[in-house]
Amino acid sequence: MRVKHKKWADPLIAAHPELMIDDATQFKGKWQSRFAKEQPLHLEVGMGKGQFIIGMAKAHPEINFIGLEIQRTVAAIALKKALEEDLPNLQLICGDGEDLQEYFEDGEVAKMYLNFSDPWPKKRHAKRRLTYKTFLATYQQILQVQGTIELKTDNMGLFEFSLESMNNYGMIFDGVWLDLHHSEENEHNIETEYEQKFAAKGQPIYKLIANFK
Amino acid sequence: MRVKHKKWADPLIAAHPELMIDDATQFKGKWQSRFAKEQPLHLEVGMGKGQFIIGMAKAHPEINFIGLEIQRTVAAIALKKALEEDLPNLQLICGDGEDLQEYFEDGEVAKMYLNFSDPWPKKRHAKRRLTYKTFLATYQQILQVQGTIELKTDNMGLFEFSLESMNNYGMIFDGVWLDLHHSEENEHNIETEYEQKFAAKGQPIYKLIANFK
Repeated sequence: MRVKHKKWADPLIAAHPELMIDDATQFKGKWQSRFAKEQPLHLEVGMGKGQFIIGMAKAHPEINFIGLEIQRTVAAIALKKALEEDLPNLQLICGDGEDLQEYFEDGEVAKMYLNFSDPWPKKRHAKRRLTYKTFLATYQQILQVQGTIELKTDNMGLFEFSLESMNNYGMIFDGVWLDLHHSEENEHNIETEYEQKFAAKGQPIYKLIANFK
Repeated sequence: MRVKHKKWADPLIAAHPELMIDDATQFKGKWQSRFAKEQPLHLEVGMGKGQFIIGMAKAHPEINFIGLEIQRTVAAIALKKALEEDLPNLQLICGDGEDLQEYFEDGEVAKMYLNFSDPWPKKRHAKRRLTYKTFLATYQQILQVQGTIELKTDNMGLFEFSLESMNNYGMIFDGVWLDLHHSEENEHNIETEYEQKFAAKGQPIYKLIANFK
């Protein structure tokens, strides 16, 4: 998702260090200190405008959530939304998914979410896809043993690639859905902004849950 | 596929022991002797009316093919079609996919095809699906080391199940296609009768290639 730069983004982020972290490296290994309670930590890489991670934080007070977004204006939009709530189990990061090892200690995260990531459809860009093996290695490192990844996408090519890449990496599939919105799994599905718009067109949403054995 | 019993089926099968084997156990470990040349052996479990396996045998003279079908009348229809051709690299079996270990020696088969298998959609019938773990164990035994399975289906539920089951069994995915007929992989695709009819409706055909590591 590309969004025009908004002037208010930087000042808003600067004004809310209690909710959005600009330099995530300073909390490496200490994320639990940012929450009201010590409880399992779930991370969304590429939270976009935040609807999913805020919805998750509301629905699951027993889990601590972190949403990460690289684009400052998009991150600021998520921050704005999060400020309207009062969620002691939510923290946001403006940062780069490529730097996860600098943000999190080994095994610090229990679960990760990858929602509607950039498909990078050209073969020569495969390395940029968030399920490319080098990314998986990073996730494996910051995730606890048998840590889980939940992936949703509407992009067939990215889903085919992810199934193959995650299988080839040795991950164990816990569930595969080729039409999430018409499955039982959808009962407790929390939609992203993009998903909400896209699903209205009637095309399938794909979902995969997999863990590192 | 259910087909009415035809009177001519049994006599036709009995009249062509050179092409269709009724008691496949007698050739366990000796299948190469049934072909003109000794070359890699590929097996389709559930060949139906035979269009796929006959098409494959025509397209790949460098491979020996065996088509297996449990329903006698359906097997006889395939036999009829095969008799119209003169294919020294094709053999047919009227037999049960559950008895593969009695038909083939360990490692005798190089590759297997599962095309549009019965989806057995009810959960309590999961054990009957041809990608259930007990079947996979049988395939692994009759397949050579790193032997490959190619699976095609139009059934979403069966494909979801197969992805999970084959992954959980430890198989390595070589390729996943969520819309085979609109992919590059389709260039050398040989269609089954069912596939040909079904694809005309515009719904996707799924394909998976996976090997036992």
